[in-house]
Amino acid sequence: MNIIFFVFAFLSSYTFHAVSCATDFCVADLSLPKNPSGHYPCKAETKVTVNDFVFSGLVEGKPEAPFNVGLTAATVTNLPGLNGLDIAAARVDIGVNGTVPMHSHPDASELLIIFEGEIIVGFITPTKAYVKTVKPGDVIVIPKGLLHFVINSGAGKAVTFGALSSSSPGVHVHDLLLFGNDLSTSIVAQTTLLDEAQIKKLKAKFGGKA
Amino acid sequence: MNIIFFVFAFLSSYTFHAVSCATDFCVADLSLPKNPSGHYPCKAETKVTVNDFVFSGLVEGKPEAPFNVGLTAATVTNLPGLNGLDIAAARVDIGVNGTVPMHSHPDASELLIIFEGEIIVGFITPTKAYVKTVKPGDVIVIPKGLLHFVINSGAGKAVTFGALSSSSPGVHVHDLLLFGNDLSTSIVAQTTLLDEAQIKKLKAKFGGKA
Amino acid sequence: MNIIFFVFAFLSSYTFHAVSCATDFCVADLSLPKNPSGHYPCKAETKVTVNDFVFSGLVEGKPEAPFNVGLTAATVTNLPGLNGLDIAAARVDIGVNGTVPMHSHPDASELLIIFEGEIIVGFITPTKAYVKTVKPGDVIVIPKGLLHFVINSGAGKAVTFGALSSSSPGVHVHDLLLFGNDLSTSIVAQTTLLDEAQIKKLKAKFGGKA
Amino acid sequence: MNIIFFVFAFLSSYTFHAVSCATDFCVADLSLPKNPSGHYPCKAETKVTVNDFVFSGLVEGKPEAPFNVGLTAATVTNLPGLNGLDIAAARVDIGVNGTVPMHSHPDASELLIIFEGEIIVGFITPTKAYVKTVKPGDVIVIPKGLLHFVINSGAGKAVTFGALSSSSPGVHVHDLLLFGNDLSTSIVAQTTLLDEAQIKKLKAKFGGKA
Amino acid sequence: MNIIFFVFAFLSSYTFHAVSCATDFCVADLSLPKNPSGHYPCKAETKVTVNDFVFSGLVEGKPEAPFNVGLTAATVTNLPGLNGLDIAAARVDIGVNGTVPMHSHPDASELLIIFEGEIIVGFITPTKAYVKTVKPGDVIVIPKGLLHFVINSGAGKAVTFGALSSSSPGVHVHDLLLFGNDLSTSIVAQTTLLDEAQIKKLKAKFGGKA
Amino acid sequence: MNIIFFVFAFLSSYTFHAVSCATDFCVADLSLPKNPSGHYPCKAETKVTVNDFVFSGLVEGKPEAPFNVGLTAATVTNLPGLNGLDIAAARVDIGVNGTVPMHSHPDASELLIIFEGEIIVGFITPTKAYVKTVKPGDVIVIPKGLLHFVINSGAGKAVTFGALSSSSPGVHVHDLLLFGNDLSTSIVAQTTLLDEAQIKKLKAKFGGKA
Repeated sequence: MNIIFFVFAFLSSYTFHAVSCATDFCVADLSLPKNPSGHYPCKAETKVTVNDFVFSGLVEGKPEAPFNVGLTAATVTNLPGLNGLDIAAARVDIGVNGTVPMHSHPDASELLIIFEGEIIVGFITPTKAYVKTVKPGDVIVIPKGLLHFVINSGAGKAVTFGALSSSSPGVHVHDLLLFGNDLSTSIVAQTTLLDEAQIKKLKAKFGGKA
Repeated sequence: MNIIFFVFAFLSSYTFHAVSCATDFCVADLSLPKNPSGHYPCKAETKVTVNDFVFSGLVEGKPEAPFNVGLTAATVTNLPGLNGLDIAAARVDIGVNGTVPMHSHPDASELLIIFEGEIIVGFITPTKAYVKTVKPGDVIVIPKGLLHFVINSGAGKAVTFGALSSSSPGVHVHDLLLFGNDLSTSIVAQTTLLDEAQIKKLKAKFGGKA
Repeated sequence: MNIIFFVFAFLSSYTFHAVSCATDFCVADLSLPKNPSGHYPCKAETKVTVNDFVFSGLVEGKPEAPFNVGLTAATVTNLPGLNGLDIAAARVDIGVNGTVPMHSHPDASELLIIFEGEIIVGFITPTKAYVKTVKPGDVIVIPKGLLHFVINSGAGKAVTFGALSSSSPGVHVHDLLLFGNDLSTSIVAQTTLLDEAQIKKLKAKFGGKA
Repeated sequence: MNIIFFVFAFLSSYTFHAVSCATDFCVADLSLPKNPSGHYPCKAETKVTVNDFVFSGLVEGKPEAPFNVGLTAATVTNLPGLNGLDIAAARVDIGVNGTVPMHSHPDASELLIIFEGEIIVGFITPTKAYVKTVKPGDVIVIPKGLLHFVINSGAGKAVTFGALSSSSPGVHVHDLLLFGNDLSTSIVAQTTLLDEAQIKKLKAKFGGKA
Repeated sequence: MNIIFFVFAFLSSYTFHAVSCATDFCVADLSLPKNPSGHYPCKAETKVTVNDFVFSGLVEGKPEAPFNVGLTAATVTNLPGLNGLDIAAARVDIGVNGTVPMHSHPDASELLIIFEGEIIVGFITPTKAYVKTVKPGDVIVIPKGLLHFVINSGAGKAVTFGALSSSSPGVHVHDLLLFGNDLSTSIVAQTTLLDEAQIKKLKAKFGGKA
Repeated sequence: MNIIFFVFAFLSSYTFHAVSCATDFCVADLSLPKNPSGHYPCKAETKVTVNDFVFSGLVEGKPEAPFNVGLTAATVTNLPGLNGLDIAAARVDIGVNGTVPMHSHPDASELLIIFEGEIIVGFITPTKAYVKTVKPGDVIVIPKGLLHFVINSGAGKAVTFGALSSSSPGVHVHDLLLFGNDLSTSIVAQTTLLDEAQIKKLKAKFGGKA
């Protein structure tokens, strides 16, 4: 029938590309390695279903010691439809007196939506620390690459949702970088001027080699 | 004191640039025009305060006819610290039988966090419609540029938070594009094959010139 | 000979990279899947010939019902040398009273060169429709992502050449998105406020599921 | 009326940004300087008309000595709507035995649509020259940054349309770079091994200082 | 004369843009604010001289306490021709037992060319520390955003040249971020688990508020 | 232990991505083809060692006829850790009266650090040649894509280090492009107006087909 013929004629000329995954979307084929831009190759569109765009586990995370914080996240590894879209989400549940420790996302800005409780959020630049107490209805942004933290300053638990500007945001936790690996105590001491006793104490806590 | 001297010596060599707003962040000076990349020039860092990174109005929006949907958003115009960071947030409250009408964001992908109620979310590609019923704990992503919609399919109201991959996301609402402007009925008819009566009926609803 | 030795010495240091396909060009290996950026992997340079940069079919396309328009295009699939270069071309032949239906290119701007006849070209933003009657010698640009159309307003056929800012431009035709797929009539009605009868009428025309 | 109210409510939340020029387009304000990305600041949308997107002079250019070629072009300076869209167009008319001299576009790929006559098109990489005789119906792409040329190899005049992947494509003409400026004959000789007599002869032709 | 006429005709068509600063280069006008991408607006080309592309101070820097390191750098502020070119250079002179303290460049990768002496260079990822002793003739790269350090491990002074992939690289020095600002001791303690005594000791050293 | 558990819990949520090579770095797997952006796929992080980030051959290069220049370079092929980081380095040793011939890097800006001797550095735009005599302590930048050269103007040898803004910078040497390939003498003559005798003389020198 003419219309149908038209549709295919139209599609088969330059529309065709519109229907290949890379133009409208590129669902991650997690079985293949990432490319230099940090994205995964595209899964064949014929194998793509709406479920590739949905993640059902952004639920409360059980707070863990030592920071009494729970975290669940929707990133490209559990939500492959995010691939190449430069966005991801996390839910952070912070127990009473809990803390999201000092960390940074080298490749992502973060937008925090406060949902329950009261928290202190701060980020640091070489000249100044920006710190604010926020509550439900507030939104706060942490610019890409800056060291930041969250402290539960309320009487009860706190719940926040974070949106990140990367589909596989990295996180560099201060304590894991300095005290969670095999960097020698003497090197950490010489390059940070922290006392060796302090370094050893935290290496013990975070599993770093003495 | 030597240390302090060191600090300034260090800062005054190449660290200096690290402390200029454009390196760590670029808070929008909303009094100036956007540039071609869609961002605003940077406000002088001396005038930047932590409040430039916070918006306190991401609260329930009053549902409006005809779609029975309420919307509040945190974008660069009310959260200037978002400038240049390619992220924004919105809260959508959908009344019973309410709908977020068919629309697209030409320059942003959207990640929807379902918070309350049950909704049907769908987006369309030239070959297929991707539709899913989602509920609290679910997250669904709508790839950049695709036409999409949300329908409240639950018994009560629905609440979702959306993260968008642009600090000033555009929104092209199907009905406003076709029926809310001065495009003549005959042109809409000839280019969409919609009946003129249908077009006039919706132009009346959406304020378009007949 | 010294010179030749020099040439190879020079090439074999850092010039070498200049001669790998990815630096000077990256002809598409169409047998492999696209990557997230929408481009194809590079064909080995030894297999590249000048014909990879030439397409010989940008000729008159036979106008088809229902819009009485013919289209031929040079995109990466028939001109693999375009890969990664963000440019493509199309020739559009529009019969008397013919129309290029309402559509958009989510990932490409379009520059239309009018070659024969007289046409009305228009594109739509949320606030305004931009419409112009153009003729041979005129060039008109349609910004990336905007819904647009072309109407043959002349006495005879019209011929235009379009340049697009993508090597595999997608095209989202309004009628195919709303009436050419399996999106249910009730969902289209609820999210666009179009009448169900109208939707069914066009679904019949464009092959959508009722 | 409710609908209208809805429309404005919707627009005034995050739709608002969709209607600012930088989101849907950014027409060049040519009275202001370019920014580092090579684009102009945006003209206020209220001052934008459809004519900002149209150029009416892409007509035959009078062939000039010494290469017997005529050129007209639509770039951001005469078609301000191109600003930020990374596309431009040119029409090249080549007289009998005419030539588009050896040149490159450091920041743009070029797609040549052959319209009339027969031409030889070639581009050069460090390892190989790619040369092809093309005619009407053919399209040939010259990858970004490569030195290239066109020779009219037909019996009559030749007409081609070029699309470029920049809204203000630069052009570096070999003879103008080496012989059209104040670079001394001895420096050109030492760095190219061309004979001084040859250099002086061409400096005289292209207006370079001896 | 024809040639000259040709030259101007050619230049005045689309070559013209090639000669505007933004196409071939964009020398920083340091009197204007940076834009969101971190670059400065372009100085008018008529005011540009070759000296805008030259910096004459990349000489030995006097080592300072407490780290016994001297630094000079060529960045956009003293070499305005770097603007928009994503490259900069630094010379680092490290005294005996000297150290470049733990720091990161959120927006630049660094390539270190070792010129004199012997140094230990290291960078840290969340899973592993990469550490290497290098000497003249060696080059080592530190990927963008990673925490890194340099220690003079030789008998005499060490000299290195660093190239950075930004024209205004930021530098985040660990000690300045944690101990050189007004972030309270209790917040640093709670978010890093460092002992308050240790924090106060270093705040005293680096000028932070207690 | 809780801490360790915490570490893994934290890592196993969204930190996990931080430790995949593509987020912190992407060491080139040189056995695979480059992608369209000119980078190599990532080597598995488990196979990455610190030596992937070090190159030990940036030493004096033996000057070769005809230009009496020696070159060694650290690019992605001998320093795979550079992959995706847009930076590379070269050492250039220029004998007495030696020259780095007229060439360009289509995809990289170059920052030259003068280390020994005295040199004349120049680059050319369509309107002007920028030429400067520089010496140790000076740094000069050559903007991306511009034709440039270096001449040893001192009494002794000259040594410079160059940083380039690409991990696999291409180099287009004027003489190799025009006289080192199979482009016919008549085409070179017609498109550059060089005399055929001159062209043949240089083709003989640079190995081009007559």
